[in-house]
Amino acid sequence: MIYLDNAATSYPKPDIVHNEMLRCMREYCANPGRGGHILSNKAGDSVMRVREIISRFFNFDNPLNLCFTKNATEAINIALKGFLKHGDHVITTAMEHNSVLRPLKTMERDDGIELTILRGDRYGRINPEAFRSAVRENTRLIVCTLSSNVNGVIMPVKEIGNVAREQGIAFLVDVSQGAGSIAIDVEDMKIDMLAFPGHKGLLGPQGTGGLYVREGLILKPMTQGGTGSNSENVFQPDFMPDLLESGTINTPGIVGLGCGIDFIDTFGIENLRLYKHMLVQRLHGRLKDIPGVILYSIDDINENSGIVAINIGQLDSNEVSYTLDRKFGIAVRAGLHCSPFAHETLGTLGRGIVRFSIGCFNTFEEIDLAAAAVADIAASCRTY
Amino acid sequence: MIYLDNAATSYPKPDIVHNEMLRCMREYCANPGRGGHILSNKAGDSVMRVREIISRFFNFDNPLNLCFTKNATEAINIALKGFLKHGDHVITTAMEHNSVLRPLKTMERDDGIELTILRGDRYGRINPEAFRSAVRENTRLIVCTLSSNVNGVIMPVKEIGNVAREQGIAFLVDVSQGAGSIAIDVEDMKIDMLAFPGHKGLLGPQGTGGLYVREGLILKPMTQGGTGSNSENVFQPDFMPDLLESGTINTPGIVGLGCGIDFIDTFGIENLRLYKHMLVQRLHGRLKDIPGVILYSIDDINENSGIVAINIGQLDSNEVSYTLDRKFGIAVRAGLHCSPFAHETLGTLGRGIVRFSIGCFNTFEEIDLAAAAVADIAASCRTY
Repeated sequence: MIYLDNAATSYPKPDIVHNEMLRCMREYCANPGRGGHILSNKAGDSVMRVREIISRFFNFDNPLNLCFTKNATEAINIALKGFLKHGDHVITTAMEHNSVLRPLKTMERDDGIELTILRGDRYGRINPEAFRSAVRENTRLIVCTLSSNVNGVIMPVKEIGNVAREQGIAFLVDVSQGAGSIAIDVEDMKIDMLAFPGHKGLLGPQGTGGLYVREGLILKPMTQGGTGSNSENVFQPDFMPDLLESGTINTPGIVGLGCGIDFIDTFGIENLRLYKHMLVQRLHGRLKDIPGVILYSIDDINENSGIVAINIGQLDSNEVSYTLDRKFGIAVRAGLHCSPFAHETLGTLGRGIVRFSIGCFNTFEEIDLAAAAVADIAASCRTY
Repeated sequence: MIYLDNAATSYPKPDIVHNEMLRCMREYCANPGRGGHILSNKAGDSVMRVREIISRFFNFDNPLNLCFTKNATEAINIALKGFLKHGDHVITTAMEHNSVLRPLKTMERDDGIELTILRGDRYGRINPEAFRSAVRENTRLIVCTLSSNVNGVIMPVKEIGNVAREQGIAFLVDVSQGAGSIAIDVEDMKIDMLAFPGHKGLLGPQGTGGLYVREGLILKPMTQGGTGSNSENVFQPDFMPDLLESGTINTPGIVGLGCGIDFIDTFGIENLRLYKHMLVQRLHGRLKDIPGVILYSIDDINENSGIVAINIGQLDSNEVSYTLDRKFGIAVRAGLHCSPFAHETLGTLGRGIVRFSIGCFNTFEEIDLAAAAVADIAASCRTY
């Protein structure tokens, strides 16, 4: 099987991820920071170590300014619902995933926030100046994806961060696509809140993710519950991460995520970016010469986080992915990718796209086989 | 090491839990229900199988009426925030965990809900008729724990369910303590919403939990995001489980949880209850004869879910647990247990309690060693 659905969940993971999760579960998986006994201390220390790994990875000083979540969607919801108030104006982009769009559209409908959704060019690219032009008196937040989950297009996050900081507007970035192969520095990029999943480019397991919140920014928590701290108080503690982290966290998952990031650090994130891009370039190059193939992704390392999105002739994208899976053993994702305005931008709202999303364990041979499979399907399809 | 902190996280787990999680992660851990390729289908089928296991275990017909969460705290918050509206009155008990109390107190403060907290006798026991007496015209919800996380006292959930159903009030039960050794039947107990963690008595891993919602009860979702369904719609789908389940779920964790429940089913939940109670009885019996030991738990299988809570003389509970850990290698939890009104009820708000919480892998020998350790500490303490 050739797995090219890494934008959904990266697969496989480095062996160390599974092995350390297993060791955690077998040897010390008590409640981190709750018991005070040797196992809960060990679990707590392991979680703290991963907070430190992540704070170094994204370059923030205080590892406690990170709350762990079950995925990026939860992190984004915590940020939006904890930060925004009635009457606030938010600027975002048409390339966002439904994890951003759905909470924002719901808050627009129900909670009196105002929303501007910036549209890009035919690849979804947006000029940072468009953000400046969209600023109103009541603009309190800019929300932007690091790169699109549909076609991989990278947003000018650093430039947008400059606009936000200049205008005194908070900046939330969803790094679901790109974290793990694009270096992210919350200081340099002037990011106030950063939402990430553990199970994609960071090579951790499903069930992990997190939200970084800049020191001094106090969100209203979306959930309340036991924190192991201030137990006598029937209200949530006001300090991080307890403010946003209620109930038992996923210790083995977090341990696995730490190993995933360690692996990236060892490999070198820039090496990983270059390697992934060689594969993107190769696939893009092969596909662009196949008659009938329509390409929606850009072949430039600075504008693509690792996705090649296509259609073939007039074929429905699901039909193509079905054939890739059953006839060629190639796993991709087709249809609509939880990002309706991105599909509008690309002109693919009707039939969706076929998405090849590349991971660091893919090989040149796999890319060539995938390209040959597309050529085969295109050749047997007479609709273009 | 003797582990007696199972009310926090059960430890160890059956081997099959780790092994199947590992197999899932190694062999098929793609996005369940997202890709359409062979791996995502396999992941989706595995998750569906666990929905079915859980629906049988708690006796509800439609496995889709379950949303998976990261822990019970999230499930309780989804239920409370999704169900309650401004002006609603809620009845709950003083034996609730902060996972229930904190969201309710916050909603009382911020969202205009009214709250009645019923106090019990010196063990926390509450007469079901007290719920009936507390009903007001605007009472819409009764929230009750299956048993206390502080002293294990079991609530008369079936009788409370009868009161709720008679009065047309919805009934939410937090089964964090007791699920896995006390048989739960949502039909028989007239439970409308059931919140559970995976990592305690159900023997699954941390990072898992769920909320059952009775057919026809539509909650307002706490989070919105990608569901892999209705992708073109910028609002959340209105059907379960997608309504309440946004973003990638924890496939390996859910697979592990399924194995934990399978293990319980194989062992027999009633056998497990009886075995655990033999250990509770033995520990209770040994401790009650030690001079200076104050017992806060009841020695009756129908009134105790598996906890023996004590103090020794005038000693601080944390001092006792520290000695148990360092000198005797016995892991318990001390202090306040995220349940302030339960401590008020038991008269232990000042120094907390030492909690021995028993799991199905504990042995008679471990119980005897724990009792001997307490006797040693009590003998060397001259404060009583």
